[in-house]
Amino acid sequence: MKRKSFLKKVAIASAIAPIALTTSCRSEEAESGAPNIQTSKKYRWKMLTTWPPKFPVLGEGAELFSKLVSEMSAGRLEIKVFGGGELVPALEAFDAVSAGMAECSSSAAYYWAGKSPAFQFFATVPFGMNAQQVNAWLKGGGGQKLWDELYANYNLKPFAFGNSGVQAGGWYNREINSIADFKGLKMRIPGLGGKVLEKAGGTAVLSAGGEIYTNLERGVIDATEWIGPYHDYKMGFHKIAKYCYFPGWHEPGTVLELFINKKKLESLPTDLQRIVEGAAAIVHDWVLAEFDAQNGIYLQKMKEEGNMEFRQFPDEVLQQMRTFANEVVTEVADANPMSKKIFESYDKFRKQITPWSNMTEKAFYNQLQQ
Amino acid sequence: MKRKSFLKKVAIASAIAPIALTTSCRSEEAESGAPNIQTSKKYRWKMLTTWPPKFPVLGEGAELFSKLVSEMSAGRLEIKVFGGGELVPALEAFDAVSAGMAECSSSAAYYWAGKSPAFQFFATVPFGMNAQQVNAWLKGGGGQKLWDELYANYNLKPFAFGNSGVQAGGWYNREINSIADFKGLKMRIPGLGGKVLEKAGGTAVLSAGGEIYTNLERGVIDATEWIGPYHDYKMGFHKIAKYCYFPGWHEPGTVLELFINKKKLESLPTDLQRIVEGAAAIVHDWVLAEFDAQNGIYLQKMKEEGNMEFRQFPDEVLQQMRTFANEVVTEVADANPMSKKIFESYDKFRKQITPWSNMTEKAFYNQLQQ
Repeated sequence: MKRKSFLKKVAIASAIAPIALTTSCRSEEAESGAPNIQTSKKYRWKMLTTWPPKFPVLGEGAELFSKLVSEMSAGRLEIKVFGGGELVPALEAFDAVSAGMAECSSSAAYYWAGKSPAFQFFATVPFGMNAQQVNAWLKGGGGQKLWDELYANYNLKPFAFGNSGVQAGGWYNREINSIADFKGLKMRIPGLGGKVLEKAGGTAVLSAGGEIYTNLERGVIDATEWIGPYHDYKMGFHKIAKYCYFPGWHEPGTVLELFINKKKLESLPTDLQRIVEGAAAIVHDWVLAEFDAQNGIYLQKMKEEGNMEFRQFPDEVLQQMRTFANEVVTEVADANPMSKKIFESYDKFRKQITPWSNMTEKAFYNQLQQ
Repeated sequence: MKRKSFLKKVAIASAIAPIALTTSCRSEEAESGAPNIQTSKKYRWKMLTTWPPKFPVLGEGAELFSKLVSEMSAGRLEIKVFGGGELVPALEAFDAVSAGMAECSSSAAYYWAGKSPAFQFFATVPFGMNAQQVNAWLKGGGGQKLWDELYANYNLKPFAFGNSGVQAGGWYNREINSIADFKGLKMRIPGLGGKVLEKAGGTAVLSAGGEIYTNLERGVIDATEWIGPYHDYKMGFHKIAKYCYFPGWHEPGTVLELFINKKKLESLPTDLQRIVEGAAAIVHDWVLAEFDAQNGIYLQKMKEEGNMEFRQFPDEVLQQMRTFANEVVTEVADANPMSKKIFESYDKFRKQITPWSNMTEKAFYNQLQQ
């Protein structure tokens, strides 16, 4: 069966007789007339992810979510997690969940930038907000409402599902002492980061995860970004690259996401809808904590085992890259009215929180931290 | 159909034809005697707080928790929230919940330092970790396990319930240009911050919230700390103090807490226990986001309306205060074996995460933020 016609059939089947998909088995309370009372009706969901099965932190987060939902719902909502490619190709997760072929997926919004550049703001933008700031925008500054609005166009409801924190700046076999050193640099760097690199004279190369190591080792690429010490250590980059540069200007606080087919979510009883939110919040909180804890440990391991140097990008290089990044982000904002509207909210919040961040968190790192 | 044989069939079916599962949402399992199935038994809980009723962010967080638990449990667990003093005096919340007079309370662990100085590490310590770091310690570095162990001695189970972020450094009617300016300074500052101030030659004064404004206005005290722009604005300090100093060395990332009577929690069905965790995680996430968003707004309002200056503590003043703070924290750590054990975990984690924080979040504020 062709995929499209399959998706269509599934969609039709769901639309016509969603109830028939489950049999309902009501407990005494179900008859008591309380508005949101749970029934013992069971739901079986499929959750896609855009990373390999059991991928550290991110894949583990999806499994944790499934476990929590099962426990919180006393087994009324069971979610089976699939690694990227197990059920549909990783980058088809969005369309598959939108069409109802699976009920939900964990991912990062920049994978869907091909649909609209507006998606970028819900993952990360070069020289944009960090984890704490972007979370304040989403939860306290109206960001979530815009995210809901954007995803509703695709029959999806998004939830923040963790953050990577500021990422590593990448593995380089070339020193970066001035902006001129990016000229001719072949770097594996997707998305907006790649566009910024190209403005600086480099070439953004796309490689699947499994090919990066060999490409870097053989000189097919001069540099690559990945995530941070925990994941990068497992990739072995510290064994073949000369320099690891910091900070990751291209991903200063990448939001991970959970998105759920909106109709499927809304067809759940209210208590299960809220349970999904609660389980997502536990994962959201855990992901950044786990990234930080493991990155601290693996940074030390790399220092002990790696035959390479950690380097900080020079200030003037970052100042010039920021100029290029602003051009790229302006192009994103100007792409369409929704992208503009989201950018304006993001940018206004960033400008409002920055003076506060500087007096507190920035001062913490510069003056308080021991 | 028995559950095991059903699962086996599903597993086989998935391997052969995962697609077929899309329309199967089985309910037979409801009869299978799953261990944690919810009953229709209702629970009514009382929740204390250590702040005034409807107190911005913190009191609102308690109300949000109650609402979420009610929704997630479909009304099976209803929690009535009481402001500090409404049911028992605010600072008796710990003993009241420990004894089972109320089922839970929101608070901050440093209020209970009189029981053991070890409690301080689960709120904040002067020149200690910030919100992101302490959360990584709790969730990814073993901190929660120690917190559980400490509170189990009092028949309580603690959960992180938000963070204030780095607080404001306080409202001063005296300039702080050198450490000597703390000599003779009468400041309303409780806890460890007060002990550090006294080592610097100042006098730590305790005032109830309602008396601080008048005491500062009349010169009974020379300075006071409170929280940050959002709460401080409502107190009106910007109208009567000359300077607001930053950053808040005494509270670099105060963890708020929810603690629950352990026996009452464990007497809930497993699904309700997990629901409580999920609701707490939503509040935990929201509190810091709301603090940040509102503090950004109220900082601007103060700048527009206040007849006062924002000042940054000089580096050398903070370096000296840090020395005093280390003496104070050492006294806390040496107080008893449990305090020592917690300090060692906290301090080891801090040392491990600091190089990572410096390469990422610190570099973000210094080099990336626009």
